[in-house]
Amino acid sequence: MTTVIPVKRAGKTKPQKVENAVKTEIEWLVDRHDGAPNFEMRRFVIKPGGSIPRHYHPDIEHEQYVLRGNYTIGIGKKTYEVRKGDSIFIPSGTPHWYRNTGNENAEFLCIVPKKEKYNSVYLETENQS
Amino acid sequence: MTTVIPVKRAGKTKPQKVENAVKTEIEWLVDRHDGAPNFEMRRFVIKPGGSIPRHYHPDIEHEQYVLRGNYTIGIGKKTYEVRKGDSIFIPSGTPHWYRNTGNENAEFLCIVPKKEKYNSVYLETENQS
Repeated sequence: MTTVIPVKRAGKTKPQKVENAVKTEIEWLVDRHDGAPNFEMRRFVIKPGGSIPRHYHPDIEHEQYVLRGNYTIGIGKKTYEVRKGDSIFIPSGTPHWYRNTGNENAEFLCIVPKKEKYNSVYLETENQS
Repeated sequence: MTTVIPVKRAGKTKPQKVENAVKTEIEWLVDRHDGAPNFEMRRFVIKPGGSIPRHYHPDIEHEQYVLRGNYTIGIGKKTYEVRKGDSIFIPSGTPHWYRNTGNENAEFLCIVPKKEKYNSVYLETENQS
């Protein structure tokens, strides 16, 4: 049975390494284990020099909000430099990638629909050395 | 037809007054007009002295993230003082309210499922004078 925890304090969720990415961590802030029925909220941190390679999700859209830093995001054929307070919408099926060439951590929220399986298709790989 | 705008810059969305609330504004950051199929992302600003009275949504849950300030939030029978970086989950049907007794703006993101109608039931009113 799910016990609802209405408030999770800053810093109390555990960062996990993001597969296929470089110097990137994810925390699941509110998810199905909390009883979330429709969508799940995660926070990403991409450290300086970090990146997530170009990929897409066939049936998962992203709604994102930039919390900190400056970083580059590619969406479809376009590239954007984003910063704190910017909002981002990436429709399902749209290739996207991230690169933090700045000096401070890039942090953003990423909300996704709750799906049985989190399908991703990677279009390139990063040098993770 | 919906034209997808992948990035909305900070400060480019228009704040609207929140009905039934005091000194509170909402901006819809990513919503159905952007093509969002499943959930919608809004930012609330509650100014010092502002509040949103106790209410619930029969079929809408909230996932929230505190961006700025310190404020009080009531969820069910409990009260929490929240601050930047805290994550909040309010299941559908759960009464909740907000009060900013601090000296700076309280800001938070609130993500909701996309519904035909945004049903709310108010359990009290605020003195909006």
